Amino acid sequence: MSKVVTFGEIMLRLSTEKYLRFSQSKNFSATYGGGEFNVAVSLANYGIDAEFVTRLPENEIGECALKEMRKMKVNTQNVIFGGDRLGIYFLETGSGNRGSNVVYDRANSAIASIERGTFDWEKIFEGKTWFHFSGITAAISENAAEECLMAIKTAHKLGLTISCDLNYRSKLWKYGKQPSEVMPEMLSYCNVILGDIDTANFMLGMEKVDPDYTDEIALKGFYSKLFEKCPNLKIAATTLRYSVSASHQRIGGILYDGKSIYEAVVKEVTPVVDRVGTGDAFMGGLVYSLISTPENLQRNIDFAVAACCLKHTIVGDYNLATLQEIENIVNGDSSGKVSR
Amino acid sequence: MSKVVTFGEIMLRLSTEKYLRFSQSKNFSATYGGGEFNVAVSLANYGIDAEFVTRLPENEIGECALKEMRKMKVNTQNVIFGGDRLGIYFLETGSGNRGSNVVYDRANSAIASIERGTFDWEKIFEGKTWFHFSGITAAISENAAEECLMAIKTAHKLGLTISCDLNYRSKLWKYGKQPSEVMPEMLSYCNVILGDIDTANFMLGMEKVDPDYTDEIALKGFYSKLFEKCPNLKIAATTLRYSVSASHQRIGGILYDGKSIYEAVVKEVTPVVDRVGTGDAFMGGLVYSLISTPENLQRNIDFAVAACCLKHTIVGDYNLATLQEIENIVNGDSSGKVSR
Amino acid sequence: MSKVVTFGEIMLRLSTEKYLRFSQSKNFSATYGGGEFNVAVSLANYGIDAEFVTRLPENEIGECALKEMRKMKVNTQNVIFGGDRLGIYFLETGSGNRGSNVVYDRANSAIASIERGTFDWEKIFEGKTWFHFSGITAAISENAAEECLMAIKTAHKLGLTISCDLNYRSKLWKYGKQPSEVMPEMLSYCNVILGDIDTANFMLGMEKVDPDYTDEIALKGFYSKLFEKCPNLKIAATTLRYSVSASHQRIGGILYDGKSIYEAVVKEVTPVVDRVGTGDAFMGGLVYSLISTPENLQRNIDFAVAACCLKHTIVGDYNLATLQEIENIVNGDSSGKVSR
Amino acid sequence: MSKVVTFGEIMLRLSTEKYLRFSQSKNFSATYGGGEFNVAVSLANYGIDAEFVTRLPENEIGECALKEMRKMKVNTQNVIFGGDRLGIYFLETGSGNRGSNVVYDRANSAIASIERGTFDWEKIFEGKTWFHFSGITAAISENAAEECLMAIKTAHKLGLTISCDLNYRSKLWKYGKQPSEVMPEMLSYCNVILGDIDTANFMLGMEKVDPDYTDEIALKGFYSKLFEKCPNLKIAATTLRYSVSASHQRIGGILYDGKSIYEAVVKEVTPVVDRVGTGDAFMGGLVYSLISTPENLQRNIDFAVAACCLKHTIVGDYNLATLQEIENIVNGDSSGKVSR
Amino acid sequence: MSKVVTFGEIMLRLSTEKYLRFSQSKNFSATYGGGEFNVAVSLANYGIDAEFVTRLPENEIGECALKEMRKMKVNTQNVIFGGDRLGIYFLETGSGNRGSNVVYDRANSAIASIERGTFDWEKIFEGKTWFHFSGITAAISENAAEECLMAIKTAHKLGLTISCDLNYRSKLWKYGKQPSEVMPEMLSYCNVILGDIDTANFMLGMEKVDPDYTDEIALKGFYSKLFEKCPNLKIAATTLRYSVSASHQRIGGILYDGKSIYEAVVKEVTPVVDRVGTGDAFMGGLVYSLISTPENLQRNIDFAVAACCLKHTIVGDYNLATLQEIENIVNGDSSGKVSR
Amino acid sequence: MSKVVTFGEIMLRLSTEKYLRFSQSKNFSATYGGGEFNVAVSLANYGIDAEFVTRLPENEIGECALKEMRKMKVNTQNVIFGGDRLGIYFLETGSGNRGSNVVYDRANSAIASIERGTFDWEKIFEGKTWFHFSGITAAISENAAEECLMAIKTAHKLGLTISCDLNYRSKLWKYGKQPSEVMPEMLSYCNVILGDIDTANFMLGMEKVDPDYTDEIALKGFYSKLFEKCPNLKIAATTLRYSVSASHQRIGGILYDGKSIYEAVVKEVTPVVDRVGTGDAFMGGLVYSLISTPENLQRNIDFAVAACCLKHTIVGDYNLATLQEIENIVNGDSSGKVSR
Repeated sequence: MSKVVTFGEIMLRLSTEKYLRFSQSKNFSATYGGGEFNVAVSLANYGIDAEFVTRLPENEIGECALKEMRKMKVNTQNVIFGGDRLGIYFLETGSGNRGSNVVYDRANSAIASIERGTFDWEKIFEGKTWFHFSGITAAISENAAEECLMAIKTAHKLGLTISCDLNYRSKLWKYGKQPSEVMPEMLSYCNVILGDIDTANFMLGMEKVDPDYTDEIALKGFYSKLFEKCPNLKIAATTLRYSVSASHQRIGGILYDGKSIYEAVVKEVTPVVDRVGTGDAFMGGLVYSLISTPENLQRNIDFAVAACCLKHTIVGDYNLATLQEIENIVNGDSSGKVSR
Repeated sequence: MSKVVTFGEIMLRLSTEKYLRFSQSKNFSATYGGGEFNVAVSLANYGIDAEFVTRLPENEIGECALKEMRKMKVNTQNVIFGGDRLGIYFLETGSGNRGSNVVYDRANSAIASIERGTFDWEKIFEGKTWFHFSGITAAISENAAEECLMAIKTAHKLGLTISCDLNYRSKLWKYGKQPSEVMPEMLSYCNVILGDIDTANFMLGMEKVDPDYTDEIALKGFYSKLFEKCPNLKIAATTLRYSVSASHQRIGGILYDGKSIYEAVVKEVTPVVDRVGTGDAFMGGLVYSLISTPENLQRNIDFAVAACCLKHTIVGDYNLATLQEIENIVNGDSSGKVSR
Repeated sequence: MSKVVTFGEIMLRLSTEKYLRFSQSKNFSATYGGGEFNVAVSLANYGIDAEFVTRLPENEIGECALKEMRKMKVNTQNVIFGGDRLGIYFLETGSGNRGSNVVYDRANSAIASIERGTFDWEKIFEGKTWFHFSGITAAISENAAEECLMAIKTAHKLGLTISCDLNYRSKLWKYGKQPSEVMPEMLSYCNVILGDIDTANFMLGMEKVDPDYTDEIALKGFYSKLFEKCPNLKIAATTLRYSVSASHQRIGGILYDGKSIYEAVVKEVTPVVDRVGTGDAFMGGLVYSLISTPENLQRNIDFAVAACCLKHTIVGDYNLATLQEIENIVNGDSSGKVSR
Repeated sequence: MSKVVTFGEIMLRLSTEKYLRFSQSKNFSATYGGGEFNVAVSLANYGIDAEFVTRLPENEIGECALKEMRKMKVNTQNVIFGGDRLGIYFLETGSGNRGSNVVYDRANSAIASIERGTFDWEKIFEGKTWFHFSGITAAISENAAEECLMAIKTAHKLGLTISCDLNYRSKLWKYGKQPSEVMPEMLSYCNVILGDIDTANFMLGMEKVDPDYTDEIALKGFYSKLFEKCPNLKIAATTLRYSVSASHQRIGGILYDGKSIYEAVVKEVTPVVDRVGTGDAFMGGLVYSLISTPENLQRNIDFAVAACCLKHTIVGDYNLATLQEIENIVNGDSSGKVSR
Repeated sequence: MSKVVTFGEIMLRLSTEKYLRFSQSKNFSATYGGGEFNVAVSLANYGIDAEFVTRLPENEIGECALKEMRKMKVNTQNVIFGGDRLGIYFLETGSGNRGSNVVYDRANSAIASIERGTFDWEKIFEGKTWFHFSGITAAISENAAEECLMAIKTAHKLGLTISCDLNYRSKLWKYGKQPSEVMPEMLSYCNVILGDIDTANFMLGMEKVDPDYTDEIALKGFYSKLFEKCPNLKIAATTLRYSVSASHQRIGGILYDGKSIYEAVVKEVTPVVDRVGTGDAFMGGLVYSLISTPENLQRNIDFAVAACCLKHTIVGDYNLATLQEIENIVNGDSSGKVSR
Repeated sequence: MSKVVTFGEIMLRLSTEKYLRFSQSKNFSATYGGGEFNVAVSLANYGIDAEFVTRLPENEIGECALKEMRKMKVNTQNVIFGGDRLGIYFLETGSGNRGSNVVYDRANSAIASIERGTFDWEKIFEGKTWFHFSGITAAISENAAEECLMAIKTAHKLGLTISCDLNYRSKLWKYGKQPSEVMPEMLSYCNVILGDIDTANFMLGMEKVDPDYTDEIALKGFYSKLFEKCPNLKIAATTLRYSVSASHQRIGGILYDGKSIYEAVVKEVTPVVDRVGTGDAFMGGLVYSLISTPENLQRNIDFAVAACCLKHTIVGDYNLATLQEIENIVNGDSSGKVSR
């Protein structure tokens, strides 16, 4: 069985009570999440041996994050303690034509302020087969980016499959370097990349593009250039999202293996219970599917889209949909019947 | 005025907080419900003198169920105490393409473990005009089924109208008998049956069918066979449900009186607040309408469908829609305007 | 900068927990609101110096209302204390084809039972530029209506712009006078009126009409008659609302300046989080827009419609949408994307 | 078995969330209660056939009150509908040296505004053995007082035992008459009176006194004068309460039968969960005990005190303590051990 | 480091909202607990490698229990799935002189209905040093008792230290055998026993006694007889509890090692937040202390008492007090100062 | 009337649900508070014109803090926006012998990272009579300390009364300077100082002492030395607190005016609802009383102690007790009777 390691930040998420604006809410619901952790939870839920590597502050809030990881059956043996605080983000969940609102308070978090060389990647990757990271880890601080690069190189050396979710957030990337200065080297080692083509081009310092995702021939052209830039790339995938409103999304997906385009049917997602982490759910579904049925690329993109769709119905950052629920949607049943 | 008796199980329903999965919820909302009780509540709400007969455990949880019955103005004078426990079911309410999830924990309930002859049906039915039961009572235990049959025979002897909601649940029916060994005798006394045609055929041991509910002629054929099997049958009705998603249903209904098909216009139901008990709301609406305007069969099926639709907007097992709200929908106004 | 005064009643709103009927709810959510106060909050949110004038009972509940005003940055220097009680309304929020339900308990409120001459309007209007009231103040008691008329006349004398939201509620108007005995004089001073044409005609004692809001020429005819009746009228506007269900509304709007009709594109609003106060949000948006960009009437009606739409996504009586959120919709982006 | 009727007002109680002040609470917990209703609930809980007579407004809030009565097994067959509103009181629960705070909003309630002769007392008292009222009903309006007197005279004529809890609230009594103008006639028919001696003297227009409840001889003197004023009086009882703080009370009681003083041992009550309705719990315990063991007056006062103590641990207006729990305290076990 | 295994039942605990009686609570707080699991959580919190062995039903509720174990860092590798249901208990938390109320609904639980030989104890105990069970496992079913005896014998054979908390519950023990038929053999292997002397005598079939825990000489006599009956016994301990009220307890403890009596000073515990599981907290503290400082018996009983006291301040079944908090109390500081 | 300015930090306080530990709580209650803001709220509640000066981050969380200030009638005209974040502290409320637990996450807050000269103190103090700060502002950053000193000097120059609450928190003071390097200059301008004598000595770099607060002569000696060090000092006061447990405190106070010692009677405070901010309530009470009855020093210390006691019963950081409630305690009535 595959053993996956993901590396990044886990934050305390403080969300207002249902539908309330920040100024109306006297309570915040407290959960924990972060891009790479969310992928690890997805994998653990699907039965994969998954581990999350991070640094947590040595206080009760850090302890709470650790307990959440354990609860979700994500391995934590290489989590270390140190630094000053757990990153926080405040979330006001939107509805209809009022979008959700995120206020970040994640500067100076325990993981952002690590020293280079904090983790012994050789030891961490022993017996592991897959390493996943995202563009967020590269964005939060120079040290985190350097540590991440070290992890990537070690993973590459040890022969692990390496995946990256580009996850570009302009509000991060504040430590003085541009994505195009940091990401190209990281992506050069990646075997699987998830992201929009224009984001990939931007991060790789390539020309700005505005791809038409319905034009298969043009798409192949765009993806091919990524493959040229990233010599280890085997799979590039993109989530297609059309936002009718905060409560109604349309989700599809595209996968390219260097030869063919595989496209998943666009699905209606309404109502949206929780929009956050749906991209991570896509990534988690993709990794799982690539591991479990590597030969069936159509199924892989279908699975990723179905996982992403179901995440929209689940509160919190990570996907608690079951394999069976995802399979039902892959098999065409989105009727949401009562199971009794 | 009609006086109706229903007989069956009332359970403690423990549902997760809105949208949360079982593993996320630190609280369960506690309500009480069960198919036959739900019908009694509908009738009491519409002004009918309704009574529910069951057995409750002699503990505080049984007391709570009794208090709920009283609150809803359902007569309880023949409820008895005994047995070990109140049946429980856990409910995780779905959304969008994630369906609701029911975990039953109802084995060995007070009503399932009654001794035959527990109730004095002659006395219970004194002055009553209608008896309602469902296939669930026949399914939970052999003793419950036998007691139910006794009730049916007594009701028949005393000239009460008898109605049954087939309510087939494959997870029940575990005591060693098949529906086709138990239900035919019960249904032979029924004057009103609610259920899908294929379910009716299955329970009556007839051939498996896959009816097309838009084909009136074929429908008449199917229903006619039911009427042959059930010599006392006067009205057969079927709820038509198309599940777009857990949050969006389309509801219609068909009624057959041995001569003509009456069909209600399909209505859009979105969003769905609570899917559970919507069939019981249909049944309750049908019984009420058959009692109050027996001559108007088109209105009867329209009323049942409207009651069913409104139940989808109401939390809990039973229908708290008012007569006026249902009439509005029967009369074509589904606009949900503010009443102020 | 403009300085706006609104005058009327603020009530304690007690709403059931999400989706529950009155008889199911063991808690009421407590907020404060009222037509004219809601307009003041909208304006304060948009950066306008806004004041609300009312009378509050001298008890803790009145104190709570005052604290809410201060929190929302609505000036309160002319609020006075006296009378017996704060008006209350109970709200059961509907869903789908079940409409919301309002139970008024607002008789004998502090503001309804004021003595004529309670407020020194000359002093209140010093340095102010705009006065807003609604038909509700005219409806709650004879004294309130007389005080309101005094305010209107003083405002007119001092050269303030005067706006009125007709807000006809048949359940009010119980003190023995008809709207047509009270409203014509009030409206004769108004420069801006918001309301349906048939409501305006009814209140002005004009002939009953059933306008077709898609027929521009007929509309001009109807509005022209209003302009004739109301010699100070500059702007007449109407909210167009089509109620698909309690959870789905379609909102548009029309504005007439005595010469041209300006019409806003109808927008889909689904799901509806809170229907109450959406008319006040329209009014607040209209006043703000007329103040800030008086020359751009198309923008004014667009802004009012967008503000109204967004209010449907916000819990409570008043609109907490930000200028930026409204501008996004005016500019055609209703996608409700996450802001992060 | 005895059949008891109580008559008075039931209110909607809106209490802040635990420990919060009015201005901090965004939710009110909604329950229903009132002195005479609370006594009826106590009796119903102890197995007595108890009925409550009142008038409720014909709206959903009145419906809720009726459902609560039914839930508590209090008979409601003579409850009538009419009037404008249900009385409300707001409650902020104190703690330690911060006392609880009640804001009344009960003027013009359905019961306060009844017409004289609203109820057919001859019919209501048919088959009944006991009538209970309190000084609150005499205080809320002249009509309510007159209706109550009519009930008392009818009860007396029909031979029912009549009990009264003096329940003096200076904030009520606003309709122009003094207690000493109203209460003497009412009390002249009473067989059982609960109240402080100084309150009784005040209400009966007797000289102001300041009794020392530890001086048995003086007490007999005071009580004897009551017996002289009230020719039908058989039992006079007084709750002794010493308030250490809002969270710590000491409760005792005294009963006089015209001959002897019976005194219950003072009990420590800490912490206090809910102070409201503890006097009604005393009254309910006294009536029950006088009915069930009329010969044992020491037990009667002990039972009333134990019931009162336990009420302090129960949320809401009325006492939900069980007979067994009260008996345990009467028998000297206040250890509050876990029952499992 | 020691590695401890505990074996028994984990239940779903459904407790009413703070202070509410069963009939008042519309929500149950859901937690998980059970005597032996609670001991394992205590040990894991103190840094001991602890494992809990049980059987869980293969449904979402069983999954939830497993997630709770993982969250609390209790090893679960030998938990198996099967059987029909998770045992449930309902809890109404008392206050003052109203005691807490437990309603058991634990019959036919997954662990009670195991087949003998379900667990491979030789494998489970590999590398382990301590086995703990309680009298509850012996009481819930004959099969559970037999499996437990098998575990005990295997543990004894493999040289593990064996501890037992007698935990007598008369409502259990329903499968036809008396404690005195089952417990003597089990206890004969035990090295550490926690329980009242009279309970121990009862379970061992010895004469009924009523020990005076302040009489050291008599105590030694009683304990010596236990040591005679239980040849492997090294430590006998007893929790001393005096219940002033449900909100105020006094807690002490006694330990005997075959030679000397060690007594902990009695501590005041007020208010009591949660009484359930305080005995398990005592046991957990005792096992931890015996493992970590086996030579210091006075400290061991002091530690157990301090752990027990602190548990009274913590919601739920198991003790979340930290080592530091317990040490503070052992060292005499019970002042509960703010840590900031 | 006096006009008071306070200067410092306001934080977001995130507290666990009642009694729950951090790891158990899925919700945090969100309130706002900080030493100097809390004093301003006290004063505003007592009718003093009070203003709070701080810097808030320009995001929704900063907006929420501003709205809270306005709600509490604290003037905010000199609040500025800037910096990155609002400081946060997490609070786990203790009970009995488990103390409360505070986790600070306040580094790099908007106010801590101000530039020197951010505020125009000359303008701020125009028309003001009193300036209050605390040792916390001096502790959070060097810039904050310097700005505070500038405010103090300006206030002194303009003739305002200056008060300081020493508020020593060892976890703060991390920017490289010791209190004894910063505080002496600040305190040299102060007219009123609140703090323990040993804290004052420590901050002033004086010898370490361990004062006996019952020894009046020794006390005068200690205080006299403070007066020597602080040439402008008129009033020194100390809160006496004895912590029986987290739920039971004893509160007294001492005041010295350079000549006489005034001592308030120690009061029992139980139960404790919220321990945080009780020192600020003391300070707020002291300032108010010194302003309103400057001649009555015994009343002043009594008022401060009573305010402090009542704050223990109120949730949140600041004191919502009313003047009347405090007067009642000053006048000897701590009985916590119901006000109705």
